Amino acid sequence: MIQKAPRREPPSDDDANRRSRAELDHLVHRVEDFIRDVVIPAEPAPGQYLELPVRDELRAAAKAARLFAPHVSSKWGGIGLPLSQWPEVFEAAGYSPIGPVVLNCMAPDEGNMHMLEQIATPEQKRQFLEPLARGHASSCFGMTEPHPGAGSDPSQLSTTAERSSSGWVINGEKRFSSGANLAEFMIAMARTGEVGEATMFLVPMDTPGMTITRQINTVDRVIDGGHPHVEFNNVSVPDSAVLGEPHRGMEYAQVRLGPARLTHCMRWLGLARRSQDIALDRAHDRSLFGSRLDEQGLAQELIAQSEIDIEASRSLIQRTATLLEEDNRAGTRLSSVAKVFCSEAIYRVIDRSIQLCGGDGVSDDLPLAQYLNEVRPFRIYDGSTETHKWAIARRASRRRARERQRRHEQPDGQESGSTK
Amino acid sequence: MIQKAPRREPPSDDDANRRSRAELDHLVHRVEDFIRDVVIPAEPAPGQYLELPVRDELRAAAKAARLFAPHVSSKWGGIGLPLSQWPEVFEAAGYSPIGPVVLNCMAPDEGNMHMLEQIATPEQKRQFLEPLARGHASSCFGMTEPHPGAGSDPSQLSTTAERSSSGWVINGEKRFSSGANLAEFMIAMARTGEVGEATMFLVPMDTPGMTITRQINTVDRVIDGGHPHVEFNNVSVPDSAVLGEPHRGMEYAQVRLGPARLTHCMRWLGLARRSQDIALDRAHDRSLFGSRLDEQGLAQELIAQSEIDIEASRSLIQRTATLLEEDNRAGTRLSSVAKVFCSEAIYRVIDRSIQLCGGDGVSDDLPLAQYLNEVRPFRIYDGSTETHKWAIARRASRRRARERQRRHEQPDGQESGSTK
Amino acid sequence: MIQKAPRREPPSDDDANRRSRAELDHLVHRVEDFIRDVVIPAEPAPGQYLELPVRDELRAAAKAARLFAPHVSSKWGGIGLPLSQWPEVFEAAGYSPIGPVVLNCMAPDEGNMHMLEQIATPEQKRQFLEPLARGHASSCFGMTEPHPGAGSDPSQLSTTAERSSSGWVINGEKRFSSGANLAEFMIAMARTGEVGEATMFLVPMDTPGMTITRQINTVDRVIDGGHPHVEFNNVSVPDSAVLGEPHRGMEYAQVRLGPARLTHCMRWLGLARRSQDIALDRAHDRSLFGSRLDEQGLAQELIAQSEIDIEASRSLIQRTATLLEEDNRAGTRLSSVAKVFCSEAIYRVIDRSIQLCGGDGVSDDLPLAQYLNEVRPFRIYDGSTETHKWAIARRASRRRARERQRRHEQPDGQESGSTK
Amino acid sequence: MIQKAPRREPPSDDDANRRSRAELDHLVHRVEDFIRDVVIPAEPAPGQYLELPVRDELRAAAKAARLFAPHVSSKWGGIGLPLSQWPEVFEAAGYSPIGPVVLNCMAPDEGNMHMLEQIATPEQKRQFLEPLARGHASSCFGMTEPHPGAGSDPSQLSTTAERSSSGWVINGEKRFSSGANLAEFMIAMARTGEVGEATMFLVPMDTPGMTITRQINTVDRVIDGGHPHVEFNNVSVPDSAVLGEPHRGMEYAQVRLGPARLTHCMRWLGLARRSQDIALDRAHDRSLFGSRLDEQGLAQELIAQSEIDIEASRSLIQRTATLLEEDNRAGTRLSSVAKVFCSEAIYRVIDRSIQLCGGDGVSDDLPLAQYLNEVRPFRIYDGSTETHKWAIARRASRRRARERQRRHEQPDGQESGSTK
Repeated sequence: MIQKAPRREPPSDDDANRRSRAELDHLVHRVEDFIRDVVIPAEPAPGQYLELPVRDELRAAAKAARLFAPHVSSKWGGIGLPLSQWPEVFEAAGYSPIGPVVLNCMAPDEGNMHMLEQIATPEQKRQFLEPLARGHASSCFGMTEPHPGAGSDPSQLSTTAERSSSGWVINGEKRFSSGANLAEFMIAMARTGEVGEATMFLVPMDTPGMTITRQINTVDRVIDGGHPHVEFNNVSVPDSAVLGEPHRGMEYAQVRLGPARLTHCMRWLGLARRSQDIALDRAHDRSLFGSRLDEQGLAQELIAQSEIDIEASRSLIQRTATLLEEDNRAGTRLSSVAKVFCSEAIYRVIDRSIQLCGGDGVSDDLPLAQYLNEVRPFRIYDGSTETHKWAIARRASRRRARERQRRHEQPDGQESGSTK
Repeated sequence: MIQKAPRREPPSDDDANRRSRAELDHLVHRVEDFIRDVVIPAEPAPGQYLELPVRDELRAAAKAARLFAPHVSSKWGGIGLPLSQWPEVFEAAGYSPIGPVVLNCMAPDEGNMHMLEQIATPEQKRQFLEPLARGHASSCFGMTEPHPGAGSDPSQLSTTAERSSSGWVINGEKRFSSGANLAEFMIAMARTGEVGEATMFLVPMDTPGMTITRQINTVDRVIDGGHPHVEFNNVSVPDSAVLGEPHRGMEYAQVRLGPARLTHCMRWLGLARRSQDIALDRAHDRSLFGSRLDEQGLAQELIAQSEIDIEASRSLIQRTATLLEEDNRAGTRLSSVAKVFCSEAIYRVIDRSIQLCGGDGVSDDLPLAQYLNEVRPFRIYDGSTETHKWAIARRASRRRARERQRRHEQPDGQESGSTK
Repeated sequence: MIQKAPRREPPSDDDANRRSRAELDHLVHRVEDFIRDVVIPAEPAPGQYLELPVRDELRAAAKAARLFAPHVSSKWGGIGLPLSQWPEVFEAAGYSPIGPVVLNCMAPDEGNMHMLEQIATPEQKRQFLEPLARGHASSCFGMTEPHPGAGSDPSQLSTTAERSSSGWVINGEKRFSSGANLAEFMIAMARTGEVGEATMFLVPMDTPGMTITRQINTVDRVIDGGHPHVEFNNVSVPDSAVLGEPHRGMEYAQVRLGPARLTHCMRWLGLARRSQDIALDRAHDRSLFGSRLDEQGLAQELIAQSEIDIEASRSLIQRTATLLEEDNRAGTRLSSVAKVFCSEAIYRVIDRSIQLCGGDGVSDDLPLAQYLNEVRPFRIYDGSTETHKWAIARRASRRRARERQRRHEQPDGQESGSTK
Repeated sequence: MIQKAPRREPPSDDDANRRSRAELDHLVHRVEDFIRDVVIPAEPAPGQYLELPVRDELRAAAKAARLFAPHVSSKWGGIGLPLSQWPEVFEAAGYSPIGPVVLNCMAPDEGNMHMLEQIATPEQKRQFLEPLARGHASSCFGMTEPHPGAGSDPSQLSTTAERSSSGWVINGEKRFSSGANLAEFMIAMARTGEVGEATMFLVPMDTPGMTITRQINTVDRVIDGGHPHVEFNNVSVPDSAVLGEPHRGMEYAQVRLGPARLTHCMRWLGLARRSQDIALDRAHDRSLFGSRLDEQGLAQELIAQSEIDIEASRSLIQRTATLLEEDNRAGTRLSSVAKVFCSEAIYRVIDRSIQLCGGDGVSDDLPLAQYLNEVRPFRIYDGSTETHKWAIARRASRRRARERQRRHEQPDGQESGSTK
């Protein structure tokens, strides 16, 4: 049987804001128009960062157009779309590499908002979620650690939080803390017990003992605030800094994980489509050996492969988003498949678009080479392709083992597989 | 924007029979149980055909279990599921290579039933659809012709039908007329005017002048009745043999095309899943170099790749089926993408399952090598991978050209692609 | 540094028979002509076996043309080519699936002859090698065993030979004993001591206690004599049945292994080229959408990919053959890489040729679907792709570890890799 | 038959300098040591250019070690290796991205030297070749033009040279003139007659009317002197500026083409090997889920695939180099296959090495992301993968057509392909 079973009803706010097909179409069109007319003309040159004043101006325009924070409850200033209606909107935003930042649905803030909305106390929501949602603050997420700490294997978590008289004292080091340079606060994971027992903390970046110790220069440009190392040196936080309840950090991480992976897929799929459009425009304009490039089979091969990659990615994303809304656990499992497929497919699409544009594709006359650099890390972060494959294979083996088990418990159980 | 817009309401019968999520789950489980408990034990050995008496016994069991003809209106004895609810049921049926024949949802009958239900006159439905739906007759579809006739390029159609005093006279030759050896009638496409003008005829196989002239031996075994050549030598048919209206054959072919392609994907996906299960069972039982095969990374690579192929196929199929129900034209376009992706992905899954089973995988101890032969032709029939890619690339180029056109018609239109 | 160093001089007979470039060209042309004019017209229909009387007639013609047993010393009736000159000759022979049998350079006899020539005593050569070389006898090789015995992991060897008063007594079971049904004798590997200590025996098939217990039906047709199970039940053999010396079986297996793997690559590459030629002929003759198929880019993509696969395979084969002649150990290591690459590439070439031929490609109008079945097992036997990859990765890691070791032993050793 | 026939004897200088296997091994070892001990420690940080004073110091060291200009005749200060002995030396040099510049065997100078040595007059050799070979000057090659001029299709050449009283007057524009910013002279191709009739000119960069009009910023860093546009505005040159003879430019381009493509393969293969070594070092040092990364199957899959890509590339390169030395035309054809295969394979190797290094792989802690940017353009320049595939497919079709032709001219000619 296929993964699907609805285990819990979606929260009522979701339903209140759920759009009809026609309303959603209308919203997506408005995002597309906004990206094309307002955001794309303001894009920085390839390899450059978006300047903050420009960003803030664009964000003001997005608010004015009521397109800001599409995934956040209207209570905090967002549009409040249910998860199953994010894909087309996020893809439309991602058609510009700066679109998601402008619409305030970029990582890591977007995932943090989603998690805060589900887990934080009312007071924490007011203090941390609302400024994020309204674009008055930014945040980072502190999970990954320098080797041999938490990376692909979260059980290696080595940052610790110990009880003090007045709350907790955190020690450790995080790396690839995307956004930390600009962030007002970090949601930091620290071990608070046995292996696998962890707590999430809301820690303002200016808390004494918290230092950005090293900038990591990576090939991407679109996550505001870089990917630095952050050190915790006897960082004291009060009990109220615990996000949700203590010792449930690993469980909360799962709440964040599935949607956060999938929104990356949605956004980068928009960039893949942008690349394909750039290549299609070029292939239409260029002639080679006497005919238009887009009428030549070897170019059509590239174009068609990319169309297929885009449509397959879109289908997996939509199905996973719907499933996540219905059943977070089943959805998180499927999001692992979607993440591998989409990150690889999106990379291929952009790579082919470069090939279709020839020499221009690797020069700054076109943004494509930088797009390739933007999505290269996506095959690694949020679980590398190989880590996910390992997990996918193990889940498949266990699922099949359970099926065999059930079969054998039946009176006339038999192997379905073999012919003998 | 993404293909989606609902253009017409689905027919009321669909809605009458539409299942809730829980009801559909229940139906799918019943199909799975029936396949496992009743069908699989009766499968012929690899490379052998299902014998007709066994088939008929199994069909009687399927009827008794109320699982027969899931896609046909209850009026004609089927279950009457709307198209968007076929995928999981057909996949469950396809878990056995003979499952679809047993449940009477195998090509070419299934596509013929679907087309007849949409297009035929009430009298034609009674005469041709009802016996098909109830499993009292079988049929074939006459479209493909020997080179240089209709193949990937339907405009090459060379079989003709000419008006006579009493109806029409058909001349020509069809090949790959799957099922013809067992069929009571053929739905035959013949040219009745200019290039591209064609009519569909319902022709009983025993009509004078109609001869099976040559058997084609292919590598697959599951389509009852082979893939022979059929010759029309002054075959006279009355006006009532015209399916629907004259000269609308190409249009009707489109009605058949999208769903017929997609149901192949659904059924063969079931076989891919079967193969993966056989491989998982084997990988669990075998040890190599001191550890269980399914715990070794190079096996896990194969297992995971297949899981990803299965889930991506499933997602594309479900999205396409939903779209076909809402908007046949948009759905048919997407079915072209789904057909390429799924036929290639399903082949890869079965190929990997052989690799996981080692020497047994290419022997008759396991059915996998025959499964590979079953699905190899699927990358060719219903439009080869290359023909579809060509069409997909052309559609992408035209879609983008229309977008550019719209942009330039706007006052401040600008190229979204280039950075300069 | 690259693998190459010549460790031992090739045997003098090799040099005596080494052809100049022009002489080798002439020989290859003669093989090509013989295959085209004599062998191809006598090929059995797809899926059928070559009948023995036809085989013997063709072999007589090959002898008359002085093309028989190209790899065997002229002393035993062969041509006596050195290993580095086999590739083009074997490829030319493999252009017909029955070519290698006709020229007496087909597995398993060819590998057995090569090993006997290197290892057997003069008396054993007279008794076993000479009849093989002259085509008066055939043989099989008994290594693989039913699970959990020797397969990908030879240390699992479970067939044993124990000393008796008059020689040895062998017990155990072999499977995939290719050629056993027709063979006069088997070269059988049996454990004669600790794990990893084994001896090779020359055992006539009619020795009491030796029984063919089960036929395995596989998808290939070209290895005469099938792939049955062979049981040893207290099989007594004299001391003179020991091939070479006792307890050196594993070492001798290495002598056979490298060349035997590589000659498979050579022969099947010929069949890949045949498939490509069939597809090129078809693509030249067919028109689609108004132009010749071989002028359409999506067909050209397939054609070019296959050309590249063929040339890359050919290059790897030639380099490996040259290396095997100079340094058997280094050559055997590289043969592992060649085996994976060529078996996968050859399969792809034949698969693409089917795609280029459309519906005919999967029917018996063309032999291509059967060719695909011939080469499918090659990705599994002689070490599956996955087993070889595992070994290749381990060798790479160890090679690099040795390099690091050497570096660190130098006074100013430094990491060459990292930038910090 | 396989491409091979030796048509001309290699020039005598080649033979004079041809090394024995042992001598070549020794030379390769010396290059490897020099790269490791002298060059790698002086590499610039990822994304930075090599500074000229450092370059010149390193070049002095290379000269002192007698490793400078390995491909140039000893007459001009080089080592004078014959082409078939370049591959291992160039690969060893390319192990550092700056190695080839240091050894003075980097594009475009290397290809220019090779062509000058074959074609230039004695006076031109003295004036242009000698300073290049001794590292006293640098050069560029002016072939590619802005669209719709010469690119993948050289017949589009639009730069013209017209006869004047005192010589020739050149007008036009070149782009991707790699190295132009630092060059003392350009070898420029200009049309001097009908379509396809062209002449090569040796033009000092300071000739009046010659201007660098635009810098193109691309993702690679290792070709000294960027890839700018160069404009010719009534540039007057004397008759002695004609390289070789007038109107033979296209023919001369072929002389440069084959080896120049192939030396790119050789050099970048060295960088692929470097990447693999970096990844192997990392995989050895890292543990994940309780075992060393290089012992995990999903890492081994990546490692093995890269080993296979490296060995297959090496084999194709060596075979092509040998063929180029024997038969320039056949070698140039095969170099087209080698270029496609190697450029794609090398890219994959570096891409996998990034994946093996996780987050570090896309950061400046390792040079790998920059390496990927170095080789991305190689899939485009010197003929894109798609252009080569088109040419390869056409050559295959024509070769097969000639074979059919020959067959039909024979008395009993028959189709070898079909079974009927």
